[in-house]
Amino acid sequence: MPTTTTWNRHHILSLADFTTAEYDTVLQTAASFQEVLSRRTKKVPTLQGQVVANLFFESSTRTRSSFELAAKRLSADTLNFAAATSSMTKGETILDTAKTYLAMGTDIMVVRHREAGVPNAIAAEMDRLGVRVSVLNAGDGQHEHPSQALLDLFTITTLIDPDHPRMELLKGKKIAIVGDILHSRVARSNIWSLIASGAEVHLAAPPTLLPKLFAEFISEESEVRNQEFVISSSPTPNSPLPTPQLFLHWQLEPALQNADFVMTLRLQKERMTAHLLPSLREYHQLFGITSTKLQLCKPNVKVLHPGPVNRGVEISSELMDDPEFSLIQSQVTSGVAVRMALLYLLGSGKA
Amino acid sequence: MPTTTTWNRHHILSLADFTTAEYDTVLQTAASFQEVLSRRTKKVPTLQGQVVANLFFESSTRTRSSFELAAKRLSADTLNFAAATSSMTKGETILDTAKTYLAMGTDIMVVRHREAGVPNAIAAEMDRLGVRVSVLNAGDGQHEHPSQALLDLFTITTLIDPDHPRMELLKGKKIAIVGDILHSRVARSNIWSLIASGAEVHLAAPPTLLPKLFAEFISEESEVRNQEFVISSSPTPNSPLPTPQLFLHWQLEPALQNADFVMTLRLQKERMTAHLLPSLREYHQLFGITSTKLQLCKPNVKVLHPGPVNRGVEISSELMDDPEFSLIQSQVTSGVAVRMALLYLLGSGKA
Amino acid sequence: MPTTTTWNRHHILSLADFTTAEYDTVLQTAASFQEVLSRRTKKVPTLQGQVVANLFFESSTRTRSSFELAAKRLSADTLNFAAATSSMTKGETILDTAKTYLAMGTDIMVVRHREAGVPNAIAAEMDRLGVRVSVLNAGDGQHEHPSQALLDLFTITTLIDPDHPRMELLKGKKIAIVGDILHSRVARSNIWSLIASGAEVHLAAPPTLLPKLFAEFISEESEVRNQEFVISSSPTPNSPLPTPQLFLHWQLEPALQNADFVMTLRLQKERMTAHLLPSLREYHQLFGITSTKLQLCKPNVKVLHPGPVNRGVEISSELMDDPEFSLIQSQVTSGVAVRMALLYLLGSGKA
Repeated sequence: MPTTTTWNRHHILSLADFTTAEYDTVLQTAASFQEVLSRRTKKVPTLQGQVVANLFFESSTRTRSSFELAAKRLSADTLNFAAATSSMTKGETILDTAKTYLAMGTDIMVVRHREAGVPNAIAAEMDRLGVRVSVLNAGDGQHEHPSQALLDLFTITTLIDPDHPRMELLKGKKIAIVGDILHSRVARSNIWSLIASGAEVHLAAPPTLLPKLFAEFISEESEVRNQEFVISSSPTPNSPLPTPQLFLHWQLEPALQNADFVMTLRLQKERMTAHLLPSLREYHQLFGITSTKLQLCKPNVKVLHPGPVNRGVEISSELMDDPEFSLIQSQVTSGVAVRMALLYLLGSGKA
Repeated sequence: MPTTTTWNRHHILSLADFTTAEYDTVLQTAASFQEVLSRRTKKVPTLQGQVVANLFFESSTRTRSSFELAAKRLSADTLNFAAATSSMTKGETILDTAKTYLAMGTDIMVVRHREAGVPNAIAAEMDRLGVRVSVLNAGDGQHEHPSQALLDLFTITTLIDPDHPRMELLKGKKIAIVGDILHSRVARSNIWSLIASGAEVHLAAPPTLLPKLFAEFISEESEVRNQEFVISSSPTPNSPLPTPQLFLHWQLEPALQNADFVMTLRLQKERMTAHLLPSLREYHQLFGITSTKLQLCKPNVKVLHPGPVNRGVEISSELMDDPEFSLIQSQVTSGVAVRMALLYLLGSGKA
Repeated sequence: MPTTTTWNRHHILSLADFTTAEYDTVLQTAASFQEVLSRRTKKVPTLQGQVVANLFFESSTRTRSSFELAAKRLSADTLNFAAATSSMTKGETILDTAKTYLAMGTDIMVVRHREAGVPNAIAAEMDRLGVRVSVLNAGDGQHEHPSQALLDLFTITTLIDPDHPRMELLKGKKIAIVGDILHSRVARSNIWSLIASGAEVHLAAPPTLLPKLFAEFISEESEVRNQEFVISSSPTPNSPLPTPQLFLHWQLEPALQNADFVMTLRLQKERMTAHLLPSLREYHQLFGITSTKLQLCKPNVKVLHPGPVNRGVEISSELMDDPEFSLIQSQVTSGVAVRMALLYLLGSGKA
């Protein structure tokens, strides 16, 4: 296992204040677990006797399975809480549910909730109680989904340097994020990590799905160059960047132009019926990623999607299955290694 | 592990016939597991290779998680049966479901059902078949919930003597049980264990939620002193007690007066809408436990609740979070240790 | 563990092309696991570090628990996917779900689906991708349920020779399969295995629940002897059998006459309401198995049912509980041993 001298974080709630050293520690730790996963025996005894509770107030088989498998491969015991069959329906508050799992002996809580801020509220309560339990945000409302952004980061950096994935590999890379930016916690977490790496991030969405204001990312003057896109400078108040890094587009093409990576986002069905989109066919025509549209990008461009994919909507079916361009399967595989790394970093300091 | 020479019980269905020696064995075994849970490695190999099946015909995430974690910390394999997605909807009888889990190789069945008597019926069938499987009642209708009462017992006796919790510590203590006594399996199990300890048990509830007859607990003459409360003598036919131990009150105050412990009960939502209560606000005003009302009790009184709590109904929100008075978190922690003890006592004799 | 030199199969999707050597390997491997299950420690480390994903697009607590326990006793890690709470509702295709579990690191997928052919489609996709994951059909629509038929086979052959169950033991035995043949995947798988063993298979059902054509099993001329039954000859085109082996009856009695084993099938509730049956009472009167009707069979006849049973419909309640005739509990126990064998045979070649 890697030395973790740089790791002092007790919860993982957001990537907004992650340092480059922390990102690099996650990437390197995940790389060493990726190596473990290639062995015949894929388990390590690192978290034996510890309890990882998956508190999924919003159901997600995919993300829950990924965290559960990561925990099991670290030899932790897992508990699954699913809101549907839980005492939530009996009127218990979320904090009381979390405190119940704390009292049972949980070491790490993996929390997903449809409301933004729930993992933060649980973490704050645990800190107030002075207990050592860690909280890991597995997606909260439209806020953040840190483990997804970290696995995306791991997927693209290991593609560049399989043995030594690190932030600096992305410096100057052009990365397009396409789709429902407005409602996407995945996009929000990805923007933080990609900007921190020094990449150039281009957001493309229909005007109804692009945030009007991006106050959290834009600290200084933004500039409307034309009707098509807005350029922002420095992403965080305290570290103004020499060059603009975040670009917003109402059209797909300028985002794809010479892109190194295209990150597509899931289009929630709810959006489709909420008058935010004229039709799925029109969305696919304008913002769906196809082999033809990819010709605007760098020749060795790769496409990502957090899944589950609506085939033929966010991405064409044939492109999704093309191993030359699609990283979608790699993302899922990376997910287990990255989540092992996160649980390891949170859990190994305990006891 | 403790010697278990006093343990001959094959099922845990009810506390009605528990002996003091059995209670003390459970308390002492749980204390030794509590110690295990404070170690870095919280697992013991005691039940390795054994199968604990959680047959929850009535869903309960909290209790199921507690049993599941207890089983995993004893290194047992666990199977979860949830009625919602089960073949119960396919017309199979409960006994046939139990026999299916028996035939798969289950060693201990943890059974919860909304109907009283189901765990007993399953245990009787297992005995009739001459098999060695044990049945543990995890709550049956309005009948009993032994593991809850045992964890309550463990919580209050370890508070008095952390290293040697035992029944005699409660002799002469005044314990109030407040709330929906009539429908509460938790109350019913607690009454058995507390009376057996020699404590003085005071039940307080609105008349609509207090049993009219308490035939099971009252063997000899009861006495209506006034409109407010009834005193019963000896709880069981065979062991008439020298002094009255069970008191029923239609008001809260006489129950709280000089109480050492106050056990509050969950108010089921169903009761609230079944014309048994005028309103939640009135219930809280009359029977809800608050800091002010606690001043009637002994100065170091403690409050318990089996959870999940309706904050501001059975107990005020600020009291619930006050570590000086609330034992609610301790109860959950005790739950894992006590359930490890019960599974150990049932399981260690096998094979 | 047995030598498995005869095993080259990578998926278990259907029994249609199983060889006698393969059947015998399964039976002998299951017998050795049955022996493991009789030990004090019922676990073996065979599949440690491997992941068995139960992808149950159609819910089944019983079969899922059996596979889960089999996997745990082989020390594999298990992941449970249940369609109800899954991303299936989010529009993901079945193949994409399977590929997600593949990418997470699944070694064996146990697949159940209400549509025939889904496990085959997943297996074909895995092969196309050139990956080593195995697919095990746990029931697909009205197609096949191989593990059920194999546990039935194990149950009846171990009854004849407990230490050396093998196909040749069934040669010339008369086996009746009674009930909803038309819709039964269990019947379909059983017919393949029983005919391969050289048994004489008699199907009995009301005309509405008996297949009109049995093209897959009947290669040469069939013969309508009278209004009551049809005799088919050789079950497969390439291996015409010297004597007829498959018989279809519209009445129960000729099927039971001198039968060695009676396999009853579950009557799905849907059939009862779909005008395929006049009434449950009439069904039970005509095709329900009772002690009285069994007198037509051989004296030591045994009765099987895949469960869950509708007591008093397919089989009388008292017969079901009669250990002299009923093999229903044995079938469930056999299920764990047979599924351990199947997971072992698929999994032990990996890595």
